[in-house]
Amino acid sequence: MAQNIYDDETFFAGYSQLPRSIDGLEGAPEWPSLRALLPSLAGRRVLDLGCGFGWFCRWARAQGAAQVLGVDLSQRMLTRARAETADPAISYVQADLEQFSPAPGAFDLAYSSLAFHYIENLERLLTPIHEALVPGGRLVFSVEHPIYTAPRAPGWSVDAAGHSQWPVDGYLEEGPRSTDWLAKGVIKRHRTIGTYVNLLLGLGFVLSHIEEWGPSHEQIAAHPEWARERDRPMFLLMACDRPASR
Amino acid sequence: MAQNIYDDETFFAGYSQLPRSIDGLEGAPEWPSLRALLPSLAGRRVLDLGCGFGWFCRWARAQGAAQVLGVDLSQRMLTRARAETADPAISYVQADLEQFSPAPGAFDLAYSSLAFHYIENLERLLTPIHEALVPGGRLVFSVEHPIYTAPRAPGWSVDAAGHSQWPVDGYLEEGPRSTDWLAKGVIKRHRTIGTYVNLLLGLGFVLSHIEEWGPSHEQIAAHPEWARERDRPMFLLMACDRPASR
Repeated sequence: MAQNIYDDETFFAGYSQLPRSIDGLEGAPEWPSLRALLPSLAGRRVLDLGCGFGWFCRWARAQGAAQVLGVDLSQRMLTRARAETADPAISYVQADLEQFSPAPGAFDLAYSSLAFHYIENLERLLTPIHEALVPGGRLVFSVEHPIYTAPRAPGWSVDAAGHSQWPVDGYLEEGPRSTDWLAKGVIKRHRTIGTYVNLLLGLGFVLSHIEEWGPSHEQIAAHPEWARERDRPMFLLMACDRPASR
Repeated sequence: MAQNIYDDETFFAGYSQLPRSIDGLEGAPEWPSLRALLPSLAGRRVLDLGCGFGWFCRWARAQGAAQVLGVDLSQRMLTRARAETADPAISYVQADLEQFSPAPGAFDLAYSSLAFHYIENLERLLTPIHEALVPGGRLVFSVEHPIYTAPRAPGWSVDAAGHSQWPVDGYLEEGPRSTDWLAKGVIKRHRTIGTYVNLLLGLGFVLSHIEEWGPSHEQIAAHPEWARERDRPMFLLMACDRPASR
């Protein structure tokens, strides 16, 4: 059973105040980069792993997706998602991604935003995800970047010249990391870029794009306080495809 | 014209004293990982980009390669490579990789150890490398890892608890980095993992493996002073293929 931190009252209250919870996709600065990795959704069947409040599910439907299934562990999040969705082509299901297996061949796109770094056994999850995609189907996801998740005690430091630095340690030691983010003792799973990539390739996916995300110079012009986010990437975005023929 | 640091007398003298210069491939701790990415070489035509003293060229030939071409900018290194090679199937050519273009379809394997992070215009080089590989041919290379090359002033620090840390900054700002390694003002080119991967994919390569290299626990048992090398990866190893059919 995965840690259900999103149903923790303190965590949920804090999470609900984030820009991405209030403004949805447009409140997430990495959204334009993630959106750029998506195929055309018209007439497609879409799976959202860790759907939260359902922002992406509703957006996908607005792009013409034929059917959208959102999956999340958090009852609090799904309650709000359902309250904000009035569309019979969008379904939400409560499930633990550590055990979830969608139906084979049921989807054209699997999408996940910032959920996989909570998953302890990612190969267990990605195996049925690969099978759930039709040949030619795509998986697009974001996770916290390994540089961000690696440290025992993550945080900025400042060098003698006053420059921000992000001290890295433990990068090659994969496994749980306990951090205090919105609540105490949130467990994330650190794994390297190599591990993500080799896991996908081993399942038969073909990699089509990797982005180590930081704000663009245009975004920093609008939010000067984000400047140090270019000193180390916060998010890792990937797109990969189930080949159309083997 | 690339910086020819290997022909600098001070640099060359220092480089010649490294374990990998004295003991060859077996003196490079990442060699077992890099070797594991290689295809069978029997009867194959092999290109070594940045061949140095020719250790890999001679090893490839000993594995049964039909022909081996080593390319390097450094006259000092090639002089020693030629002196230590007595095999008409191994050739060495002096060339600047910033301008070098091998013949199309001439090779089954392109290999490069720790050279590409000196190349300013890597797309310029990899475009003819892709063309030089037969369909089904492979490119295997190592570079200094972006976590290693990113910082303005790379080096270890120690946190309050006495743990080693590798402060990262400038990760998303690609471009030259001047470091003092064996000689003053050695220019390396920092680029992200995403840039390496997307460049290869854009040329038509299919990615087959990424390794963010650090010493194994067995290697650390033999060399306890390497322990902190697991706190951040020093090298990035990749293998990718030119598809057999398009």
